[in-house]
Amino acid sequence: MKKIAVLGSTGSIGTQTLDIVRKHSELKITALTAGSNIELLEKQVREFLPSLVCVYNEEKAAKLRENIKDCSTKVVAGMDGLIACAAQAEAETVVTAMVGMIGIQPTIEAIKAGKDIALANKETLVTAGHLIMPLIKEKKVSLLPVDSEHSAIFQSLHGEKERDVHKIILTASGGPFRGKKLSELTDVQPKDALKHPNWAMGQKLTIDSATMVNKGLEVMEAAWLFAVPIDRIQVVVHPQSIIHSMVEYIDGSVLAQLGAPDMRLPIQYALFYPDRTTFPGVERLDFISLSQLTFEEPDLDTFYGLKLGCTAGRIGGSMPTVYNAANEWAVAEFLQGRIAFLDIPAIIQEAMRHHQLIHNPSLNEILNTEQETYDFVRGVAKSVSLQ
Amino acid sequence: MKKIAVLGSTGSIGTQTLDIVRKHSELKITALTAGSNIELLEKQVREFLPSLVCVYNEEKAAKLRENIKDCSTKVVAGMDGLIACAAQAEAETVVTAMVGMIGIQPTIEAIKAGKDIALANKETLVTAGHLIMPLIKEKKVSLLPVDSEHSAIFQSLHGEKERDVHKIILTASGGPFRGKKLSELTDVQPKDALKHPNWAMGQKLTIDSATMVNKGLEVMEAAWLFAVPIDRIQVVVHPQSIIHSMVEYIDGSVLAQLGAPDMRLPIQYALFYPDRTTFPGVERLDFISLSQLTFEEPDLDTFYGLKLGCTAGRIGGSMPTVYNAANEWAVAEFLQGRIAFLDIPAIIQEAMRHHQLIHNPSLNEILNTEQETYDFVRGVAKSVSLQ
Repeated sequence: MKKIAVLGSTGSIGTQTLDIVRKHSELKITALTAGSNIELLEKQVREFLPSLVCVYNEEKAAKLRENIKDCSTKVVAGMDGLIACAAQAEAETVVTAMVGMIGIQPTIEAIKAGKDIALANKETLVTAGHLIMPLIKEKKVSLLPVDSEHSAIFQSLHGEKERDVHKIILTASGGPFRGKKLSELTDVQPKDALKHPNWAMGQKLTIDSATMVNKGLEVMEAAWLFAVPIDRIQVVVHPQSIIHSMVEYIDGSVLAQLGAPDMRLPIQYALFYPDRTTFPGVERLDFISLSQLTFEEPDLDTFYGLKLGCTAGRIGGSMPTVYNAANEWAVAEFLQGRIAFLDIPAIIQEAMRHHQLIHNPSLNEILNTEQETYDFVRGVAKSVSLQ
Repeated sequence: MKKIAVLGSTGSIGTQTLDIVRKHSELKITALTAGSNIELLEKQVREFLPSLVCVYNEEKAAKLRENIKDCSTKVVAGMDGLIACAAQAEAETVVTAMVGMIGIQPTIEAIKAGKDIALANKETLVTAGHLIMPLIKEKKVSLLPVDSEHSAIFQSLHGEKERDVHKIILTASGGPFRGKKLSELTDVQPKDALKHPNWAMGQKLTIDSATMVNKGLEVMEAAWLFAVPIDRIQVVVHPQSIIHSMVEYIDGSVLAQLGAPDMRLPIQYALFYPDRTTFPGVERLDFISLSQLTFEEPDLDTFYGLKLGCTAGRIGGSMPTVYNAANEWAVAEFLQGRIAFLDIPAIIQEAMRHHQLIHNPSLNEILNTEQETYDFVRGVAKSVSLQ
């Protein structure tokens, strides 16, 4: 029986994680957390009977506490509650499935409490990799990537030696606007950008995929996870999303992981690692009906958000936080219809240009940088009348 | 310093093995063997200074002995000589690169003498897998596949568990006649069949690739090497020969090994396993310029030699020996212009139909079956006036 805490259980990765738990009696949920969706969280509590849940929003937490007073589940709230779930004594593995930099502190506390981490929160390594990776080593816990690309790289590295890696080939679907030029993207509406060709994901991630900013974040994440410099990570557009990523070794040999585009596969892999187990109802690849896999160079002029991500990763320090925070803010504004699609990379670029770099930032400095970036981009957006 | 004996050093795999040794000062040749090409063998002796060489042909052996009397290398001959090289005290790894069933006995002796085997001789496992595999376990030596497909499977299995394998996906280039129907292959000449689209190989293997009999042999070999039943091995035609083979796991995840079509890569992998090392002058894959990888179902009506191979593997016992021996004889006849291209699978089929199966044959019974098959197919060829 593996005991699991899921931080962010009402989101896309969270619900898919629970779908995996539902299929395997060897897995047990001990804690769940949500931002504010207490309707879904209540259902999850009644199904999975965790001993502890957290709602970040205090009012909603109080409401849930009232609604489930027939259950033995304890309801906590806020950052303290989130940390209580992350460091819960019972849990062995913590799935960090919340979106945003809110995930960093609970992840750190989970590692300090000796939990294995199934990492789905991109921001953790992107902004605080220099704090997280030494801690992972010190506490001798496992850091298991849940993202399909990073899981593919992890699987392609399994049993191999880090020193034998020549480069990482990170595949990208190219998103819904692959092949388009900048001039064709001026009038993109949120509903267009939310149509991802292959993957069912949360809204934020789907927009990040349309701008290719997600690949910028993934490049930075891969660099930390696999201790590979940014310049040894090549992004290749592979529209079918069948090869989830690859590793090229010093002898020219390339190992790749392939699979149906279903996030539950990498989630399950992380939860059962180092074992594999059957995936009930898995869609198996049929190479005959696939017929072809294609590859293209990413268009870094149109999708320059990706290029900015690699630049932020190369600069390091507090710059990835700026990249991430500016993007987070811009995507939210775009989804609200307040800025244009192409304003997203433009705002990231402005924020990065303006930022005074902090080398090796502390957690506080990272969180301050996030806040300062929000303040700055709000001002930029006003001054250039983007709204 | 790893000490290596190469059985069959003047053939395609043998010379490529020596090319690898030439590039790595950590490798040393201690023994070489050849069938009759003493001109090339002499050059190899002078370059690699092995302490022992064998020429299978006794007369040629005597001639070489005379020609290199200025060297300290000892020259032996015949099957006894071959076995002396295979079991040579000095050698740690034996590369079995000769073509044909002549490879079985020396391979067995090498295993008995505790050598690791870099296996390039297909016939060994195809005809005597039931004798070889238990011996490998008993003597606790490594059996490292040199064939590109089996090396790909081996690499895709590295660090994984046998029980987690769902199936093996063996890729096939489809050879020079991919897409052709039976009626288009009646007038095929040896020179047409010897034009392989991707790989530089010996003549026998190139014809086997044109008939797809090589895949039949590879399916049987994979079944032994990886302890997977024939029906869990799927042959997929992949004309670019970039994905060298794949393994699908129970969770639906597929691991694949890719690389430039260069036999020296899997040879080097086998010689350095479990380490990887740089391959001087390696052609690295460039996915952008590759642009696409395609997949097709094999045409088992046209290339029914492949289907016969799977049947022989399913039947087991002495049947794979019949399949292999009938093919070996037919390919030699075809290369001499004495039978037609399509007679190759027809002769294999006749030989298999005629054969009285021996379950679990001894080495002697295998060798007798080979001889009986030769005798039978000679008769078939005469009686139906194929000649």
